[in-house]
Amino acid sequence: MMRFIRRFLIGRPLHNQEMGHEKLPKWQALATFSSDALSSVAYGPEQVMLTLAIPGLIAYGYLGPVAIAILILLAVVTISYVQVARANPGGGGSYSVAIQNLGELPALTAAAALFADYTLTVAVSVSAGTAALISAFPELIPYEVHIDLCVLFFVLMLVNLRGVKDSSTTFVYPTYAFILGIIALIGVGIYHTLTNSAPVIPPESLAKQQLDWSLFFLLLRAFANGCSSMTGVEAISNGVPMFKEPQVRNASLTTYWMSAMLGIMFIGISFLIMHFHLLPLENVTALSVVAENIFGRGFMYYYIQVTTMLVLYLAANTAYNGLPPLLSILAKDGYMPRYLGTRGERLNFSNGIILLSVFAALLILIYQGNTEHLISLYAIGVFLSFTIAQSGMVVHWLKEKERWWQARAVLNGLGAIITGIVVLIIAVTKFFYGAWMVMVFIPIVIMIFRAIRSHYNDIAEQLSLSTGSFEKILALPRATNMVVVPIASPTRVVAETLRYARSLSENVIALHIATDEEEGRRIEDKWSTWNPGVELVTVYSPYRLVVQPVLDFISELEIHKCNYDYITVIIPEFETKKWWHILLHNQTGWILRTLLILRENVVVTTIPYHLKK
Amino acid sequence: MMRFIRRFLIGRPLHNQEMGHEKLPKWQALATFSSDALSSVAYGPEQVMLTLAIPGLIAYGYLGPVAIAILILLAVVTISYVQVARANPGGGGSYSVAIQNLGELPALTAAAALFADYTLTVAVSVSAGTAALISAFPELIPYEVHIDLCVLFFVLMLVNLRGVKDSSTTFVYPTYAFILGIIALIGVGIYHTLTNSAPVIPPESLAKQQLDWSLFFLLLRAFANGCSSMTGVEAISNGVPMFKEPQVRNASLTTYWMSAMLGIMFIGISFLIMHFHLLPLENVTALSVVAENIFGRGFMYYYIQVTTMLVLYLAANTAYNGLPPLLSILAKDGYMPRYLGTRGERLNFSNGIILLSVFAALLILIYQGNTEHLISLYAIGVFLSFTIAQSGMVVHWLKEKERWWQARAVLNGLGAIITGIVVLIIAVTKFFYGAWMVMVFIPIVIMIFRAIRSHYNDIAEQLSLSTGSFEKILALPRATNMVVVPIASPTRVVAETLRYARSLSENVIALHIATDEEEGRRIEDKWSTWNPGVELVTVYSPYRLVVQPVLDFISELEIHKCNYDYITVIIPEFETKKWWHILLHNQTGWILRTLLILRENVVVTTIPYHLKK
Repeated sequence: MMRFIRRFLIGRPLHNQEMGHEKLPKWQALATFSSDALSSVAYGPEQVMLTLAIPGLIAYGYLGPVAIAILILLAVVTISYVQVARANPGGGGSYSVAIQNLGELPALTAAAALFADYTLTVAVSVSAGTAALISAFPELIPYEVHIDLCVLFFVLMLVNLRGVKDSSTTFVYPTYAFILGIIALIGVGIYHTLTNSAPVIPPESLAKQQLDWSLFFLLLRAFANGCSSMTGVEAISNGVPMFKEPQVRNASLTTYWMSAMLGIMFIGISFLIMHFHLLPLENVTALSVVAENIFGRGFMYYYIQVTTMLVLYLAANTAYNGLPPLLSILAKDGYMPRYLGTRGERLNFSNGIILLSVFAALLILIYQGNTEHLISLYAIGVFLSFTIAQSGMVVHWLKEKERWWQARAVLNGLGAIITGIVVLIIAVTKFFYGAWMVMVFIPIVIMIFRAIRSHYNDIAEQLSLSTGSFEKILALPRATNMVVVPIASPTRVVAETLRYARSLSENVIALHIATDEEEGRRIEDKWSTWNPGVELVTVYSPYRLVVQPVLDFISELEIHKCNYDYITVIIPEFETKKWWHILLHNQTGWILRTLLILRENVVVTTIPYHLKK
Repeated sequence: MMRFIRRFLIGRPLHNQEMGHEKLPKWQALATFSSDALSSVAYGPEQVMLTLAIPGLIAYGYLGPVAIAILILLAVVTISYVQVARANPGGGGSYSVAIQNLGELPALTAAAALFADYTLTVAVSVSAGTAALISAFPELIPYEVHIDLCVLFFVLMLVNLRGVKDSSTTFVYPTYAFILGIIALIGVGIYHTLTNSAPVIPPESLAKQQLDWSLFFLLLRAFANGCSSMTGVEAISNGVPMFKEPQVRNASLTTYWMSAMLGIMFIGISFLIMHFHLLPLENVTALSVVAENIFGRGFMYYYIQVTTMLVLYLAANTAYNGLPPLLSILAKDGYMPRYLGTRGERLNFSNGIILLSVFAALLILIYQGNTEHLISLYAIGVFLSFTIAQSGMVVHWLKEKERWWQARAVLNGLGAIITGIVVLIIAVTKFFYGAWMVMVFIPIVIMIFRAIRSHYNDIAEQLSLSTGSFEKILALPRATNMVVVPIASPTRVVAETLRYARSLSENVIALHIATDEEEGRRIEDKWSTWNPGVELVTVYSPYRLVVQPVLDFISELEIHKCNYDYITVIIPEFETKKWWHILLHNQTGWILRTLLILRENVVVTTIPYHLKK
């Protein structure tokens, strides 16, 4: 039954040989890798506006300059990442770049930052997708978090547990449909602004008060929030191996195309927000208001809301392509538990997929699906990993000295410096809004990575067989074994257990713990009548404890009869027919097993006794 | 550390020889056994008033007649229970009487009813005790349920886990202090009513409208709620062995004394409620209002509130003396899990004490400590067990034919009929107020009793050794054993496990599940280099499953190599130094063990490997 549900939901297991890499043409790769970056125009410009439209300050007029600053940053990041794609045609993100060029600490920092940001990508994108949906259908407002969690577990997690291969072409349509919708929105919007009698940008959208320090700080925060639009730009450089030949050229071209589109859409939506002088509204996204102003509540409005929702959910999906493979690389390097490194029955990293879903769900629950609050945590990790990757590239060019290496090193150095400054800006301006959490989280995760690695190293050291030691252990004389069988009263189970015990060793002791002196004598009498050829030791336990006297007895054996290599304790276990029957048997056997296993040289054997009814 | 806390909280373990029965003089026995019955005057009269003071009906005037009806019922129950004490000088409640005289079904019904009512006694008494406290200190109102749970777990459960012996004399003081306070209250109250110019009972307390069917039904419900005052009357007859000689005479006299006091207090408080024409108030008990009217908010008021609280908490304690021994008798008869039948380290039935505390806590949480709602469930179980006990006594007298047996049979028969009628009244009038739950609960519990008994019978049958079969099993030729050691890669652990395996049997197979063909070949090469003298079987698992191929391999062994008596699978288990290290190891060994143990004739041996760091 469980098996059937499992098969129905995630499909049949895949054979090792079914693993393969599809190569993608540019138009398909663009859709596959860019949904994260492009979809962020659904919340990025709005975040800038939300920060600037603060009551008591006249700062709306700075929206244009902030948007342009973000556009310039986008250009720098794009050029830098084209370099990354060129230098790492084998793919691999910031972690790989850093571990090759910068060493362990920067690499782990990048990994921790990416861990935070992939999780946030899922949480932010799912929340923003649902926000697009409930903007169009306000009756869904009370179910916001429920929708988030359903999409997360029943769509994203399941689709990814089935495997990406089945679904990669389905990615193309929503992304292009979204691009088409937004371009249409911007085109019609601009036509509208030009033909309308109203001013292109109303004076209240241009009003700005004199810049002072506190206002400057606000502008930096608006900039930092707007930078959330830039997450996902690195995706293509990590996916170079999936492009058709010539891989690097195709990947570079696709990156330019993506950034150009991102830039146009970002600036276009920012312009329209200024044109309509939008102000923050509860439960309605700015994009929804823009679309409603331009198209009215008609087909095009719903088209934009639905494609926005879809592309945002797809964006969440890109984190599922990013984090589980990263965790698997970390697991192979010993920084994460081993089982995150192995492929599941559908050839994907199923444990990583589940882990990501659970963490994202926690974030959504903690922030109740509020996009604005989640974005406060966002972007710092991305820019931190940008900075590390760019720095790694500088070291790479200095080491490799390929053609134009000086120019390339300068470009990446510039990228590293600028993204580094952005990290500082985000860390300072959003510190109290949640960035501190990420700044606490990253060092903790790095410590965890190191503790795990150190544990695996310890184990490897303890398990390693120096040459000849395998033979040495096996060449020891045949090990001797003392077998102890704790018994409650002589039953069929005891007889069968004794038979098994005698097949293991000549030295078998039956041990009875008597909580009552009279009962103890009765068992002893019975024993001598039956005479099973096995010595019975009776220990009187006046405090009615059962487990402790057995442990004490074993300890005595260990001390006084040290000529045995092993002491084996055989514990019969009842296998009941119905699950609730287990409640009717005391768990002494289980407790005994758990405590005995903590001793060295004591082996615990469980002999099952199957009840027939 | 855990051990120290345990010792500090519940004391050192007690030796079997420390079990003993203190014999109690009458004055001490009265206090020990009567707190449940006497304390119920703190809520009983109020419950009658609450039911009658219903808006839209003029029924207050029936308070007096209902109180007198309850008094008469009390007399009948008292006389009946004196008979029970006489006939069962060995103690034992309704269950014992019924199983001796009436058979299994009535006995189990009584047991289920008592189970429900002991749990409710705890919940009702604790809630009512806290109600007395918060009547005096209204600032504690928001913490009502917290106080209930603290008293339940940190006072009642702990004191009872320590054992009753330590605390039995401490019971005497609060009970007598309470009796003294209530007698003083009634005395001063009556003096007050006689010397005051106000009428002894104001006309509005005597007003009653014409009796009709719906009003009659209400009166019956008031009566049913008032019957909650009578719970605990049976306590003395269960405790006869704890009285000093002449036991029966002393127990009978004590029962009369207790009932007389209960009657006086019940009627006295009912009278004062009528005199002051009290109406229902939120968060203040009627007894508190009476005390405040008579004494003002002075010393005597607080004295009455505090002693009421203490005696109610003590009343809850009587359920701890009643239910765990009953569960232990049921366990010995096979109707409850065995571990409820054994005495814990302090010689008490610790599992039963914990069970009772948990159930009572659930009731308090579900009803948020509301005494009135809890009382709706109450009393039906008590009267059901009264009826069964009285019926059992009738059968007893008919069988035994002692002196005056006819008269005694008539007395108990009358008791059975009257209490049976009360059961019907409670079941009908409180049906929708919660009695239906008890009526559903009792049959379910009876079914559980029977299912448990049937399971234990099945087991006993399967385990029993017919004469000679013990010898027959042991006389079989020495059992043969095939040992299988699943290995991941050859390490020190594998070498040591193989050494142990070879001490068990000549037939050892090492089994490697290769998820990757190349890896499998590498292990095979290593193996032949090392040549440990044990055959290595490599199974290729292209779907990367590990557990299933092992299970399949064992199944094949079972089918094809059926000349072995046992197959023993040896699984090494890492014992990690730090608890979190366990998260870093996959639990394949554990899963394998759990699934293998489900097969017959497969023995699973766990060999611990202790990591040093």
